[in-house]
Amino acid sequence: MNQNYIKADKWCIVEEGFDKENVKSSESIFSIGNGAMGQRANFEESYSGATFQGSYIAGVYYPDKTRVGWWKNGYPEYFAKVLNAPNWIGIRVYINEQELDLSTCKKVSAFRRELNMKEGCYTRSFEAVTSNNIEIEVTVRRFLSLDIDEIGAISYSIKVLKANAEVVFEPYLDSGITNEDSNWDDKFWNTTNTSIIGDRAFIEAHTMKTNFQTCTFMQATLQYDGKHIAGEVGKRNETYASLEFKQKVLAGTTITLTKFGGYTVSRNHKANELVTAANTVLVKAISLGFDGLLELQKKAWASIWEMSDIVIEGDVKAQQGIRFNIFQLNQTYLGTDSRLNIGPKGFTGEKYGGSTYWDTEAYCIPFYMATKDDKVAKKLLKYRYNHLEKAIENATKLGFSNGAALYPMVTMNGEECHNEWEITFEEIHRNGAIAFAIYNYYRYTGDYSYIPEMGLEVLISIARFWHQRVNFSEDKNKYVMLGVTGPNEYENNVNNNWYTNYLAKWCIDYTLEQLDKVKNGYPDDYHRIIGKTKLTDRECESWKKVAVNMHFPYDKKYGVFLQQDGFLDKHLVKVNDLPKTDRPINQKWSWDRILRSPYIKQADVLQGFYFFEEDFSLEQLQKHFDFYEPFTVHESSLSPCVHSIQAAKLGRMEQAYNFYLRTSRLDLDDYNKEVEEGLHITSMAGTWMSIVEGFGGMRVINDKLSFQPQIPEQWNAYSFKVNFRNRIIKVHVSAKAVTFQLSGSKEVSIRVNGEKVVLYPDEIITV
Amino acid sequence: MNQNYIKADKWCIVEEGFDKENVKSSESIFSIGNGAMGQRANFEESYSGATFQGSYIAGVYYPDKTRVGWWKNGYPEYFAKVLNAPNWIGIRVYINEQELDLSTCKKVSAFRRELNMKEGCYTRSFEAVTSNNIEIEVTVRRFLSLDIDEIGAISYSIKVLKANAEVVFEPYLDSGITNEDSNWDDKFWNTTNTSIIGDRAFIEAHTMKTNFQTCTFMQATLQYDGKHIAGEVGKRNETYASLEFKQKVLAGTTITLTKFGGYTVSRNHKANELVTAANTVLVKAISLGFDGLLELQKKAWASIWEMSDIVIEGDVKAQQGIRFNIFQLNQTYLGTDSRLNIGPKGFTGEKYGGSTYWDTEAYCIPFYMATKDDKVAKKLLKYRYNHLEKAIENATKLGFSNGAALYPMVTMNGEECHNEWEITFEEIHRNGAIAFAIYNYYRYTGDYSYIPEMGLEVLISIARFWHQRVNFSEDKNKYVMLGVTGPNEYENNVNNNWYTNYLAKWCIDYTLEQLDKVKNGYPDDYHRIIGKTKLTDRECESWKKVAVNMHFPYDKKYGVFLQQDGFLDKHLVKVNDLPKTDRPINQKWSWDRILRSPYIKQADVLQGFYFFEEDFSLEQLQKHFDFYEPFTVHESSLSPCVHSIQAAKLGRMEQAYNFYLRTSRLDLDDYNKEVEEGLHITSMAGTWMSIVEGFGGMRVINDKLSFQPQIPEQWNAYSFKVNFRNRIIKVHVSAKAVTFQLSGSKEVSIRVNGEKVVLYPDEIITV
Repeated sequence: MNQNYIKADKWCIVEEGFDKENVKSSESIFSIGNGAMGQRANFEESYSGATFQGSYIAGVYYPDKTRVGWWKNGYPEYFAKVLNAPNWIGIRVYINEQELDLSTCKKVSAFRRELNMKEGCYTRSFEAVTSNNIEIEVTVRRFLSLDIDEIGAISYSIKVLKANAEVVFEPYLDSGITNEDSNWDDKFWNTTNTSIIGDRAFIEAHTMKTNFQTCTFMQATLQYDGKHIAGEVGKRNETYASLEFKQKVLAGTTITLTKFGGYTVSRNHKANELVTAANTVLVKAISLGFDGLLELQKKAWASIWEMSDIVIEGDVKAQQGIRFNIFQLNQTYLGTDSRLNIGPKGFTGEKYGGSTYWDTEAYCIPFYMATKDDKVAKKLLKYRYNHLEKAIENATKLGFSNGAALYPMVTMNGEECHNEWEITFEEIHRNGAIAFAIYNYYRYTGDYSYIPEMGLEVLISIARFWHQRVNFSEDKNKYVMLGVTGPNEYENNVNNNWYTNYLAKWCIDYTLEQLDKVKNGYPDDYHRIIGKTKLTDRECESWKKVAVNMHFPYDKKYGVFLQQDGFLDKHLVKVNDLPKTDRPINQKWSWDRILRSPYIKQADVLQGFYFFEEDFSLEQLQKHFDFYEPFTVHESSLSPCVHSIQAAKLGRMEQAYNFYLRTSRLDLDDYNKEVEEGLHITSMAGTWMSIVEGFGGMRVINDKLSFQPQIPEQWNAYSFKVNFRNRIIKVHVSAKAVTFQLSGSKEVSIRVNGEKVVLYPDEIITV
Repeated sequence: MNQNYIKADKWCIVEEGFDKENVKSSESIFSIGNGAMGQRANFEESYSGATFQGSYIAGVYYPDKTRVGWWKNGYPEYFAKVLNAPNWIGIRVYINEQELDLSTCKKVSAFRRELNMKEGCYTRSFEAVTSNNIEIEVTVRRFLSLDIDEIGAISYSIKVLKANAEVVFEPYLDSGITNEDSNWDDKFWNTTNTSIIGDRAFIEAHTMKTNFQTCTFMQATLQYDGKHIAGEVGKRNETYASLEFKQKVLAGTTITLTKFGGYTVSRNHKANELVTAANTVLVKAISLGFDGLLELQKKAWASIWEMSDIVIEGDVKAQQGIRFNIFQLNQTYLGTDSRLNIGPKGFTGEKYGGSTYWDTEAYCIPFYMATKDDKVAKKLLKYRYNHLEKAIENATKLGFSNGAALYPMVTMNGEECHNEWEITFEEIHRNGAIAFAIYNYYRYTGDYSYIPEMGLEVLISIARFWHQRVNFSEDKNKYVMLGVTGPNEYENNVNNNWYTNYLAKWCIDYTLEQLDKVKNGYPDDYHRIIGKTKLTDRECESWKKVAVNMHFPYDKKYGVFLQQDGFLDKHLVKVNDLPKTDRPINQKWSWDRILRSPYIKQADVLQGFYFFEEDFSLEQLQKHFDFYEPFTVHESSLSPCVHSIQAAKLGRMEQAYNFYLRTSRLDLDDYNKEVEEGLHITSMAGTWMSIVEGFGGMRVINDKLSFQPQIPEQWNAYSFKVNFRNRIIKVHVSAKAVTFQLSGSKEVSIRVNGEKVVLYPDEIITV
């Protein structure tokens, strides 16, 4: 844990007291989003202290020129940047002609941030003595509408406390913004028009290169003394447009500016209709008003929570943690647009660029499958199908042929945009996660339609890749896979990473199986696909040979699969025996030292045991967990959740609980000392899994859903719902009993402690 | 071979005919240097075609901010750039007010470049019809003085052919220059003063950050019709200063501008005395005149050639090749300044930054030992001693302790300035080459003084590094070295690179041996060094354990040491079986494909067989050569020479000859398609070795110099001289006989064909 200033609360994230040191961290934690746009918790009024400004529009990015020391063949030309978009939240405030700036106020007290996750609204309030000695009380509420996802709303109230004062509000739009992350100091936005019409303003701007056209817009109204007060045209220049509201405010009274603002984008409208679309959106919002729109917001969030909430009793911090994770996942991706995906930082920062990693398939899809309609997860699968051609191009660029596909490590539009050879070219297990998600989707939802329609083509191209990526070792008389980086990125360019080899073999086997299944069940699709891919029996035979003769490094003495060839040559000192001052090693050690150490950034062999747990006995899991976990430093946000699930499976509840806390409060408590840069969105789905799959022990085995619930000592009870094949199942676990309720059935309560429960669609059976 | 336009000639490099496509290539090939400064063969007059401008001052560099995708702990903050220095050669020429520019002339004929290597002078001549239809004949001679190494001289003659014309010369200095290689478009030079005084001009400028103060200076005189014509003050601005000479020139007559110019630098003078120093240098040069200075130049080069020339009879291209190599080595480094070293591109380009690689120790020192006074090689060794503290710092930064040193991969001042983790952190065999050079120096020169004075400290720090860099593998019951890159950079982050392990063991053994020797022979030095390094017997014991129990990957089936663990898992297709279109693989293949292939960039196991050939039998050499060479693509300039030497040793003269041609004419024939970027200076020493150690079979064994001369079929005879322990030995090999002459002895001729000859200082014995 690196920080401890967030107040524990079941439904809210709360900060109390103003500390400049926490501003950037809180800007991340109190971020809001609605799947289409997002906003860091920057102040509306000017702030001259340290801040990281961020407004983001889903799917709007910039292909920044790649920055490398030495160019390598096959590197992508660009690195996609998440772009800070024009500012729509800004409201300059002047009190008796002095601009309000918390950094220069004489006193700031009663400062409080509250992110109400139940309602999807962020409130900030404080009292201040301005630099010209005016005492005021400020309350600001802000939300991004889930119902009208192009708009956000702000209510900015100032109460003048002791003496009358003249208050000027200058709500503005600003496209003269910069990015924290820029390789070459290129300009990212080009503004073509700024306009002010009545109480509204518009800035039309497009991104350079990608040419996403946007209209950033706003409307503002002032309420004082029960009246609406009209504003005037404010300032306007090439990248700025503002309105101005001036009012004498009597001591003890409150004045409120309401501002609506947001973006219309050429991704969703015709480029020449963006201003019109903005006006339409504003008309809707104004007719509802701030309060009306907020009522809808509460309902929308209530409906999300209705399905996805996890209730934990007796452990407020754990409760706050899981809700924060579920809330952020829903802020980031709602499954309404199959061109979008789940960026590792969501709408909370710029780091990592790109929007899509293997995190989506390996970590996020289970959450979306279980807490939403099937269609949401299917959209995520379809996203990859839509990128298949580009994945084939990508593989071709690297020397593969015959329709082999290598999906990118990081992407916005299907093109690779990461450029470290050890990742881009070698961390190829991502291809396997994409195939696994296809399997997982069918396993969980029972919906086979994606495979004949699209998935089989993806599987064929992935199988082709693996088949070409291995080579036959005369020495081992086996197929080997040289030069890869596994999920544990603290190893680069290793040979025969067990996880990758296992996944490759599985992909081939699974593809062959699906080919048979589609051939028999969907002959039209089969013929279409065979015609398109020109797949022959001979090719399939050749795949089979690889799958059957794959090399898996194994050590007899320890009885474990080896993470890679030669793993046992390392100096096997356990993490707990390292000096504390050496941790985290990624901040303390040089890269070569990390690489030759045995330390594991995140589950690698154990990731395979997680994906394919049915292939291994509990005894094998225990052996591998006991061998690898002591070398694991969990310096990836994706690490603790998998270990929490496996510790729970092994009945090690204390360890599982500790991993759970670490994954669920990773950002709230800033374990990795980097929350300023944004939140770890994709690992949040892993947190959800730690409860449902970990403590709850949910599994799908042979088309049946099963649970094996346990409960950490620290909790009185916990409950969650999952949507399994369109049946809602509610599970409530207390220290004494477990209750299951299938939608449409009556509640069934069973005394269970670690016993296994299998749920058929209509019955509950303990085994 | 990629180009074939250089005319064969024994002493000159000649280009005939003007082809814009060859300009950048010729700018590299016709470069001149004098160890203190260098100049690409840029035209003096303006040229609007494609050109790569380069003027360089030895030891003047810029620490450009490192450019990486993702920062890794331990990376150096900067990447040293070889800097294009202010232009002193420029002479704008106007004929009847039209500026001369070969790119826009109506006709250019009789264009000829000649680099006279015997005399160290570069001549360019051509006839042109200018764009305003004036016919002229131009001859320009240029050299950088070896005697006054701060100055260069230019004689620029124009003959007006058919009609009288007004000729204006505008000789200038210009510090408004740019670098080809710049990471962040930073400004590299800051000009503080420009001045014109009489017929002289000065620009004072310093490099940013490193603050090397320089004065770029010139003086010019015009000769016409037997008279000296005075010039006028030309243009002057913040970064430019010129003189102007205007003259009516009668048809059929010639006008000549003589320009002296160069640099005085704060590395060699007090910063506030640079202009004074420049004036002093100019006075000297002017008093000698162009012809006088050129006479000295011829003498200086004659004296260099006297010792270092290799004469080849019957093969003009081979003769031209070897002289080009010897010439360039002497242009780059003359051993007069122990702060300097031998940059991989010398003074001919910017690529690779830095000045010092392991090339110096592994390739260049033998050349300088044999063709110069001992002191020159000793200066190169001392250079590393002077950087020992920084090498210890560098290792400390990476987590090593107790005075372990890791010398940088690339350096200017002892600090690492390369930033790819697989090179910077892992290509650590460089440390071994530095130790080997100490051994090699003593073996060849018989001068032990360096070891007690300085070398032993270097050896101790290097032994400490190896001792810490290995770890004990319980699995192998041996010490292993994980995560290294060998000389073959087409493998990264491998385990137990045989060459590196062998070198490490050797370093430890050799250091222990020298400790004993110094203890017994130089007790004062020994006590000083033990006091300083705090070396204990216990530490030495621990080193010994490592040396004795080092793991060396070996394969019984092939009977060869393996380049690294797992090498035999590769798909072992020989280079000759690759499609031609796949070559060179570094231009055609993605990096991952190269890495997992068996292809070898340059000698790796065979580099070890080269360094330590006495440790292996001829049969072993043959086995390893036959195993590895077929997988070697020789895409490093340092590759063909080692293979040429070993092919010769194996009596495979045709193969040895082909490797020789490839190494000796690498740049002249542009084998690697990159000569535009500059010449491969350090590999030129390898070319010299191919003859002396390869064909000549020169070895030092047990304090005795031996030869085993052979001759390629294509040659009638060849001869060279070497300085062995201050005795000059001249060797002349013809197809029929070999003649040896020791300085002070009479010539001894022996019929030899592959027989071994051992030379004691005073006698010649065949064995």
